[in-house]
Amino acid sequence: MNYPDGIKRKNKTIYSGKRGMTLESDINDTNKYYLEKDIALIYKKPTPTKVIKLDGNRIKDGFYEIPSTTDYNGIYKGNYIDFEAKETRSKTSFSLNNIHDHQIKHLDSVLRHGGISFLIIRFTTLNETYLLMTKDFMEYINNNDRKSIPYEYIKNKGYLIKEKLNPRLDYLEVLE
Amino acid sequence: MNYPDGIKRKNKTIYSGKRGMTLESDINDTNKYYLEKDIALIYKKPTPTKVIKLDGNRIKDGFYEIPSTTDYNGIYKGNYIDFEAKETRSKTSFSLNNIHDHQIKHLDSVLRHGGISFLIIRFTTLNETYLLMTKDFMEYINNNDRKSIPYEYIKNKGYLIKEKLNPRLDYLEVLE
Repeated sequence: MNYPDGIKRKNKTIYSGKRGMTLESDINDTNKYYLEKDIALIYKKPTPTKVIKLDGNRIKDGFYEIPSTTDYNGIYKGNYIDFEAKETRSKTSFSLNNIHDHQIKHLDSVLRHGGISFLIIRFTTLNETYLLMTKDFMEYINNNDRKSIPYEYIKNKGYLIKEKLNPRLDYLEVLE
Repeated sequence: MNYPDGIKRKNKTIYSGKRGMTLESDINDTNKYYLEKDIALIYKKPTPTKVIKLDGNRIKDGFYEIPSTTDYNGIYKGNYIDFEAKETRSKTSFSLNNIHDHQIKHLDSVLRHGGISFLIIRFTTLNETYLLMTKDFMEYINNNDRKSIPYEYIKNKGYLIKEKLNPRLDYLEVLE
């Protein structure tokens, strides 16, 4: 099978449900589908890189920096869309260590400025992916001292994104 | 003087009007101002980097890639904002070689999807910076065979962004 990014992936039947795909590649494939069908323009922001040494046009020393905002943003039906995507192997909760404070602040700011922001959280062991709106995310962290969000909360307040062949992870359908 | 990014710049009085600042740093300072005053959330996207060799968390070989979209996007009063910023030393025209075809396509797509997209073009020799809406930009390139847009067209159809102390380049005021 040919994936849009041109990489031929091995059919990892051993992980039946998961198909060996990461959340990031699922979202990238989905965004490519949205782009090709002219449904939405949503891109992953490149990882910021601090370059220390440049030899001609070749980077010879540098490192990845911590992103100042979220990983994905774009436009859908005139709306500004902004989200962060995270995977966890836990079956019982989503640890808040997974997400930086300035990313939480950013998601909340987007909401205040009239945009649509959310988290996509995949419980890899359960093979379930949820969309959790920032409003519900903030409501939990503002009213609880725990360092993680229970799975049950995400299951109840979030929206399950079913995996499909194409688009892989139709999160905009869930938004509607 | 301390700039927000912590870099102490030399006072280049020799270039009086320009103050030795590049368009990119002016826009970054302006976006920082918008962010601090909670006016808008607009960021420059990191330059995409292809990493070939990683030694621990240190990049030891790689190169910059061509961005697939524009340099800046974000949200302002619920609107999706998207733009590209370019400088030219020419006094008479803005060469279309300055902007990639896929960037033009992207600006046009944003417009169709209900966002606000534009170019910020600085004529460095004239020390004039204009905001040109995508509609006017597309109108020119769709109706002309020239490989550049005349200065006069940009002056007439675009909006002059006056340089101020803070924010440096108040392009959102011009949008209003």
